[in-house]
Amino acid sequence: MITPAEGLERLSVNQMTVRGLSLPELADGCARLGIPGVGLWREPVRAYGVKATAALLRRTGLTVTSLCRGGFLTARDAAGRARALDDNRAAIDEAAELGTDTLVLVCGGLPPGDRDLAGARQRIADALGVLVPYAVERGVRPAVEPLHPMYAADRCVVSTLGQALALAEAFPAGRVGVVVDTYHVWWDDTAPAALARAGAAGRLAAFQLADWVTPLPEGVLVGRGQLGDGSVDLRRWRERMDAAGYGGPVEVELFNGRLWARDGAQVLAETAARYRQHVL
Amino acid sequence: MITPAEGLERLSVNQMTVRGLSLPELADGCARLGIPGVGLWREPVRAYGVKATAALLRRTGLTVTSLCRGGFLTARDAAGRARALDDNRAAIDEAAELGTDTLVLVCGGLPPGDRDLAGARQRIADALGVLVPYAVERGVRPAVEPLHPMYAADRCVVSTLGQALALAEAFPAGRVGVVVDTYHVWWDDTAPAALARAGAAGRLAAFQLADWVTPLPEGVLVGRGQLGDGSVDLRRWRERMDAAGYGGPVEVELFNGRLWARDGAQVLAETAARYRQHVL
Repeated sequence: MITPAEGLERLSVNQMTVRGLSLPELADGCARLGIPGVGLWREPVRAYGVKATAALLRRTGLTVTSLCRGGFLTARDAAGRARALDDNRAAIDEAAELGTDTLVLVCGGLPPGDRDLAGARQRIADALGVLVPYAVERGVRPAVEPLHPMYAADRCVVSTLGQALALAEAFPAGRVGVVVDTYHVWWDDTAPAALARAGAAGRLAAFQLADWVTPLPEGVLVGRGQLGDGSVDLRRWRERMDAAGYGGPVEVELFNGRLWARDGAQVLAETAARYRQHVL
Repeated sequence: MITPAEGLERLSVNQMTVRGLSLPELADGCARLGIPGVGLWREPVRAYGVKATAALLRRTGLTVTSLCRGGFLTARDAAGRARALDDNRAAIDEAAELGTDTLVLVCGGLPPGDRDLAGARQRIADALGVLVPYAVERGVRPAVEPLHPMYAADRCVVSTLGQALALAEAFPAGRVGVVVDTYHVWWDDTAPAALARAGAAGRLAAFQLADWVTPLPEGVLVGRGQLGDGSVDLRRWRERMDAAGYGGPVEVELFNGRLWARDGAQVLAETAARYRQHVL
């Protein structure tokens, strides 16, 4: 195991934060800095090989805190629905292979031409009903992530922690969790109560951090701020998670074109420093 | 008065939808198409002259359905706060002069370096306490507009209709209303109930329409979709407003760089046609 640096015991860095680093470079960088956890994305993991990734991280002693992502469960047609279920079963298998029990679900937006948010949310609930037994058998707990409402049309019709929790609550707490990502929920005055409710029920599956900075870039995908650069009271959210009984990893997930243009090892070190400064 | 074209009896076009049109061109265009109402913005109105605008619209027989905008009430320092209050008093005077009782408030974002959303919302409540008596004396009702959560940091910490209503409910219904703009609330599953509550209390002061289209442009300000181009079930929202007892104007407010690049008279006619097709 990696011996965590003091203060970094709970830190995990999602590989998208330092997208330019290969998996061996990421593992090496985390080992050097005493960062004990990483969050992974399916595409780079599959490119490197799922088994090879699992072996590399085991060798380094890194914990995989989550796998992103399953989801996209809102197709209306039978073929699209079947494809999505197959892909989610594959994601569950990959999570199990990587040794993480947390598969993050980005549930999907509105199909083209569709304007029925409630209908799309119902299809997500139906798909969870199919997938959860498969996940349980493999020791994986899908975790529903609410995405910021600016993604409601094209990525995720689950826009609030309250909605995510409502979807999860159709299943026992050990089978479906929720993800709290500060970038998505920071603006929501009802999120703290939903967070406390999720914590009391044992449904807090993952905690991700990004700061909110403006102006947003075109497409609003790659403008997540480095910790401390923006409007989110990150420490307050960490304290809320603690108070709700969450003692798990704190994962930094930054999609940021400017960070990606920089040296990955440097960004990794900066992220650890910002975490100490703004989150601990 | 303008005789409204059949079906357009409630239609109002906000002047920002056809920003390239001068006020006389806008008045002329509305008269030709039988559009009985316009929503105004302070800057172009002041450039033309408030009295001159009022006289022009009276002459044409157009109703001013709202004035945008007051607000930006979140400054922490005394000087910033005093400037904001002065500016809002001026906006109230201008609304009265233009003959509209509806002044739309975009309440303001977080001051630089501030991360305290609840504190900013409290300062808005405090400022309303100062401004409302001034508005009442002039026959103007400030209307709190929730803006989409993607504007929470830099424009408006009031992100949901529920929050807007909570601010308004500190005052009698005749003194502070709320604005429902589909662009800002369409994603929110709690908005329909808040809308019904606002309607029952007589607080629905304005109804604005824009569609949600992606990808969002850089800065996310000028990407509002023409009616029917996006993900919002506009007719359903109009029916919700009707069911809540709102019988007032339906104002189309599109900030859209592509529409602005086109001929304004053509966009005006298209907007009326889209209104018939997607809203009636």
